[in-house]
Amino acid sequence: VHPSARALEVSQDRLVEKTILQELGVGTAPFRAVDDRPSLDAAIAVLGLPAVLKTRRGGYDGKGQAVLQAPGDVDAAWSELGGVPLILERFVPFESELSIVAVRALDGTIACWPVVENTHELGILRLTRAPAPGVDAALQASAEACIRPLLDFLDYVGVCCLELFDVDGELLANEMAPRVHNSGHWTIEGAHTSQFENHLRAVLGWPLGSTDARGASAMVNCIGGLPDRDAVLAVPGAHLHDYGKNPRRGRKVGHVTVNAADAASLEPALERVLELVRASADG
Amino acid sequence: VHPSARALEVSQDRLVEKTILQELGVGTAPFRAVDDRPSLDAAIAVLGLPAVLKTRRGGYDGKGQAVLQAPGDVDAAWSELGGVPLILERFVPFESELSIVAVRALDGTIACWPVVENTHELGILRLTRAPAPGVDAALQASAEACIRPLLDFLDYVGVCCLELFDVDGELLANEMAPRVHNSGHWTIEGAHTSQFENHLRAVLGWPLGSTDARGASAMVNCIGGLPDRDAVLAVPGAHLHDYGKNPRRGRKVGHVTVNAADAASLEPALERVLELVRASADG
Repeated sequence: VHPSARALEVSQDRLVEKTILQELGVGTAPFRAVDDRPSLDAAIAVLGLPAVLKTRRGGYDGKGQAVLQAPGDVDAAWSELGGVPLILERFVPFESELSIVAVRALDGTIACWPVVENTHELGILRLTRAPAPGVDAALQASAEACIRPLLDFLDYVGVCCLELFDVDGELLANEMAPRVHNSGHWTIEGAHTSQFENHLRAVLGWPLGSTDARGASAMVNCIGGLPDRDAVLAVPGAHLHDYGKNPRRGRKVGHVTVNAADAASLEPALERVLELVRASADG
Repeated sequence: VHPSARALEVSQDRLVEKTILQELGVGTAPFRAVDDRPSLDAAIAVLGLPAVLKTRRGGYDGKGQAVLQAPGDVDAAWSELGGVPLILERFVPFESELSIVAVRALDGTIACWPVVENTHELGILRLTRAPAPGVDAALQASAEACIRPLLDFLDYVGVCCLELFDVDGELLANEMAPRVHNSGHWTIEGAHTSQFENHLRAVLGWPLGSTDARGASAMVNCIGGLPDRDAVLAVPGAHLHDYGKNPRRGRKVGHVTVNAADAASLEPALERVLELVRASADG
């Protein structure tokens, strides 16, 4: 099997993915395979509630999953999702959702961008702060210790993202994305080398460029519609990316990256961009 | 006449250009029109030697000009350049060659990037340092005071560059380029908004983006050939731009921009890039 096919196989099946992460010593939420209603009940008995029931394949942006808060939620979740292979995961009371984007070169060299913090709204990524507020060398090292063994195991080449939950300073891996990732779009303006450039460098066998951040950045997704263009462009340090897509409810049609010398000076510009984006889009 | 046509007319004729600059109160080297041999001798009598004889139209990269160091050089220069309209300029004993790139929006707003220092080799731009070493607020203001009245006079829209000589801290305008300019290529990685993005913003009537520098940058032209790609890409903060041109002696076929947090940390990377570029190209 070609390494890129293996990475797709692994990432397309949440059960395979989490099993491999555990075998590599990377922490995840406790989980169980669910193939029928008895195995769901057995999984709940082991993991307890709250828990999250997910399809093993095909979900994104919060689709294909249901949170089980109490025993009364189980029937509805089963009738919504049952019939395809599922996975039940213990609900993780995370403090923040983080992700780390990394690139692995043909020669096995790995470079990681700073850990970022992601905020979701209605299951869709709304905001990425880069670097994540409060990230220090220890947390960066922990995050890299999650993604590096995975990339090596897969003999991966190119850019990959790993979503992480921060639970009291301990990182649990949630989901990998074997590609350039939305939470890495800030690197276009916010890092010395963007995830796109380094992906190309990697697959071409070229030396990787520096993944260091340049100041502080935030990336705001435009969901369902674009904000007022001139107003966004007038915000200091704001860069508007228009994907040229037809607007549709819940669809990412662009993003705005805000960059500044440091996190404090970023804040007013970010507030203004959030206001403009919220005024125009789904909410 | 459309403003863009007027800007071209002015910039394509060194005599018109310098005359307008002087009328706007912008300092230039003293000059005289030269249309025949008697007027050349008269101009030399007024301006003295050394002086530079240039074609009024069509020169670039040091072509179409000759330096007259002593009376003995005049015959050779005249036989090389005579027969077309010329201009004689007093030789300026400059300390450094600077340039300022500015952008003027449809509504007349002007934004200027930091003044840069240019180093030429054999009449061709080799190196741009951005910002120029030693530039301070006063020098920046002086340079802006040279280009702003010119852009307003021309009712210019878009990016324009003005080359300047620094003579003991006094700036003399040498030549305008009514377009994005080689000495502004560093803005792609080295400024919050590149000259290319701001040119498009300007002609589209959009708000201009910040022209502030991000750290310190240097741009090295690749003349006659490209340097070793992997070696350049391995230099921290180096960004290689390959124009996809056929290499030819004296032809700019690419450039490398080096960026770092400050001028001191830029220096080792720049030295390495210069070494690589010099090893591969015309010299």
